[in-house]
Amino acid sequence: MSKIIIVGHKNPDTDSIISAIAAQELFSKLGFEAQARRAGEANNETKFILEKLGVAMPELASSLNDDEAVVLVDHNEESQSFDQIDYTKVRYVIDHHKMSIKTDGPIFCRIEPIGSTSSLIAKMFFEKKIEISEIVAQMLMAGILSDTLNLTSPTTTTDDKILLEELNAVAKIDAENFVAEMFKAKSSLEGISVEDIIRIDYKTFEMGSNNVGVGTWETTMPESVNEKKSEIIQALINEKIAAKLDYIFFMVVDILKQNCQLYLVGEKEIELAARVFGGELGEQEMLLPGVVSRKKQIVPQLTEALSK
Amino acid sequence: MSKIIIVGHKNPDTDSIISAIAAQELFSKLGFEAQARRAGEANNETKFILEKLGVAMPELASSLNDDEAVVLVDHNEESQSFDQIDYTKVRYVIDHHKMSIKTDGPIFCRIEPIGSTSSLIAKMFFEKKIEISEIVAQMLMAGILSDTLNLTSPTTTTDDKILLEELNAVAKIDAENFVAEMFKAKSSLEGISVEDIIRIDYKTFEMGSNNVGVGTWETTMPESVNEKKSEIIQALINEKIAAKLDYIFFMVVDILKQNCQLYLVGEKEIELAARVFGGELGEQEMLLPGVVSRKKQIVPQLTEALSK
Repeated sequence: MSKIIIVGHKNPDTDSIISAIAAQELFSKLGFEAQARRAGEANNETKFILEKLGVAMPELASSLNDDEAVVLVDHNEESQSFDQIDYTKVRYVIDHHKMSIKTDGPIFCRIEPIGSTSSLIAKMFFEKKIEISEIVAQMLMAGILSDTLNLTSPTTTTDDKILLEELNAVAKIDAENFVAEMFKAKSSLEGISVEDIIRIDYKTFEMGSNNVGVGTWETTMPESVNEKKSEIIQALINEKIAAKLDYIFFMVVDILKQNCQLYLVGEKEIELAARVFGGELGEQEMLLPGVVSRKKQIVPQLTEALSK
Repeated sequence: MSKIIIVGHKNPDTDSIISAIAAQELFSKLGFEAQARRAGEANNETKFILEKLGVAMPELASSLNDDEAVVLVDHNEESQSFDQIDYTKVRYVIDHHKMSIKTDGPIFCRIEPIGSTSSLIAKMFFEKKIEISEIVAQMLMAGILSDTLNLTSPTTTTDDKILLEELNAVAKIDAENFVAEMFKAKSSLEGISVEDIIRIDYKTFEMGSNNVGVGTWETTMPESVNEKKSEIIQALINEKIAAKLDYIFFMVVDILKQNCQLYLVGEKEIELAARVFGGELGEQEMLLPGVVSRKKQIVPQLTEALSK
């Protein structure tokens, strides 16, 4: 039996790292030799959660050995995987994003339009009747609460709420308190450079024939990010040139007010945003009330406009 | 709640029609308004099974209404879907083939490298603890036995065998007898033209920048097909030209001897087959001992060679 490496996307968010760790428990209990990895530096929220729960941060993913197969969690797009990945070694995808991967033969794939990959891992534990340890139940709750912005994101489903309750029968945590601490850690700019702000939750997408970068910063304190807006815009322009992107966007998401300031670095982005979202245009930004989800409220709309 | 149309691939085989009918029961019991459809004329094996079990043949799929969403079973490649399909309406994929579909947002997807889509539907019934009716259990057994060639195909997994036993606790059929009758019906050329022989289990694939057609005829009586070989080769050449294909192949699979005569219509096909399979070359054909599965033993190998 080959060894299984479980790994989320580059610029990992909490769900991407936690779903890998939880899947390690799932696959281990199913009899596989499984190891979680991370595809980049974890953010302050993830670090806070793992420290609080006393769980070790997974090692950085690196080149795969011949006997290693891959489980992709929380993504299925090659540009979002760690650089040394070999997609012919992917044997399983567990994700809640749009379908992108093409394979030469059948693999295992479990994708649902659910609030988090952590939700899906929880569901698989329950379906397969595999016992969840208290610590993994706590982690999965944190993953769901993080990715759904405490069940407020439009990506949230009834299943997420039910799974959260089922997990808490094992985890027994004070969810409200836990979330407040998580969001405080997420919003902290301690030790974070301007380059980090755009990199920490950043993804690139193929939209029609365009390469598009979309970063997001979820925070309870948008003003602390807005203070650095001109520097951030310059860093986005640098990234757009360096990565030969056709478009780059950056979302400053106010978790509490449930809105997004979409930073627009140039004429192309302003024109596209005006056409697609039609929000109120400010100085190189557009305010989008109610918009908090890149996956549901930004990427499909841009993809549709750029695929025509 | 929108209405769900469940449909398999064009040139439907038994698994493609039976998994749609069984999924109709699954989704109905989950509270959806669901209807199975077929994407073409059923083959003699499928007709035999449905007649024997007293189940109505699903209606032909046609243009979708605005309130209809689609569940794809047994395929996820647009070229294999019925012509009037709108892929933006696909909400669920249940399949056991390579991953090909790209979507603009997340949908439900359940793919496994398992012997049949019927196996996967059975698994979903058991996971979701939905009661299977006797008739659907019988149909799912037929779907598994058909697609795995009575558990002899290399696509067969341990799960298929376990599911077959679990289904038979409800279905209570004499599987050996049932299979013998199924294969007799499958091998019958009654009412079958040469064009039907290549069309009945025929699929096209994108391989690198090539469009490739691969038909297969599974039979206990290969000699009855081989008698028509020159006519079949001419019909394949006609199809290759009409559909602007780069390559076309046709497999005559001997279910009992477990081998395949691969018909080769021209120089390009002969060169590629020699390079990829290296089998013994006959008169416009190559004998491939042990090869019975298009999905596992033909398509990945051709795809790899044509993607370089």
